[in-house]
Amino acid sequence: LTFTEFYNAILSKDIKSSAGLPYPITKLHFKKGEIITKYGQTETAVYFLSSGMVEMTLKSYMTEKIIDFFFENEMFTSLTSFLTRQPSDVQMKALMDCDAEKILYEDLMNAYCKSLDANKLGRILIEQAYIKKANREKDFLSKTAEEKYAELLRNQPKYISHIPVNKIARYLGVHPESLSRIRRKINS
Amino acid sequence: LTFTEFYNAILSKDIKSSAGLPYPITKLHFKKGEIITKYGQTETAVYFLSSGMVEMTLKSYMTEKIIDFFFENEMFTSLTSFLTRQPSDVQMKALMDCDAEKILYEDLMNAYCKSLDANKLGRILIEQAYIKKANREKDFLSKTAEEKYAELLRNQPKYISHIPVNKIARYLGVHPESLSRIRRKINS
Repeated sequence: LTFTEFYNAILSKDIKSSAGLPYPITKLHFKKGEIITKYGQTETAVYFLSSGMVEMTLKSYMTEKIIDFFFENEMFTSLTSFLTRQPSDVQMKALMDCDAEKILYEDLMNAYCKSLDANKLGRILIEQAYIKKANREKDFLSKTAEEKYAELLRNQPKYISHIPVNKIARYLGVHPESLSRIRRKINS
Repeated sequence: LTFTEFYNAILSKDIKSSAGLPYPITKLHFKKGEIITKYGQTETAVYFLSSGMVEMTLKSYMTEKIIDFFFENEMFTSLTSFLTRQPSDVQMKALMDCDAEKILYEDLMNAYCKSLDANKLGRILIEQAYIKKANREKDFLSKTAEEKYAELLRNQPKYISHIPVNKIARYLGVHPESLSRIRRKINS
């Protein structure tokens, strides 16, 4: 999809081109391996991913934890940094070549002052992001590694089919060897 | 505060009474120990807490985990259930007598169709809820028990002064004895 098509789908609108959106939008391309938002950088934009795959990581003591993956037709940004205007403690990286569109912080905030549709879309997308985070919190608090993997298989089959096993393990907070054991058990 | 005062403060408005709000609002009172939203119940409302304290718990295998606390002048609800219309996997309980106001699901959804201000407030409150959840995820992934407690002391001094130590331990996912050790170390 283009962002305009995504916008129309969520808000049941019929805007013909990006000129009808409440904010300007710019197309851009990320090469595989390219860092989109660096650790310590204040996030300047929200992105719509037309094609490709992006990972979000968090620096920890010894390792880098994987917090999230984003796929085509999803929005992504270092959301906490974007909203608070503080330096980002997460990094966003393109896992393959990506086509994306971006909306700049200032343009979005201007639209939020007076556009009903901009506020509706923003609210709906943050509601979805909240639900994803809240479910992840509940998984961490109450599920075994095996249940977490089974749930991912059921709810996010894309993750399993597109992302290397060692990254899946880091995303679930599970030791890679434990995950291999779980996968053998489930697949047998 | 009343909800109307809270609404005016966040949106820089000057509404004189709840009749000027984009949705009807009802006052209610919860007694200490009263269950506000039960496990398995689909959440019907969002609440504004004028006074009192509320806890949100999650049923796990052996124990009940504490996910969140809410204080006066905050909104609360079983948000995932409210948004998805699925049975709640969390429970909300009044930890002391509470004065609150509520907005019903249907009334809020009606307001969201056409009110710019209702969408603005909804977006801003969900942004705040998202930031709280995202920070908690990062704490779980990258902080030691001692760092988590120190952070709570710095960012949420209310938690420490109002909530019994055993509940704080369950909220941080720390063994109560480890927490006592950490507290002695920090206080000495």
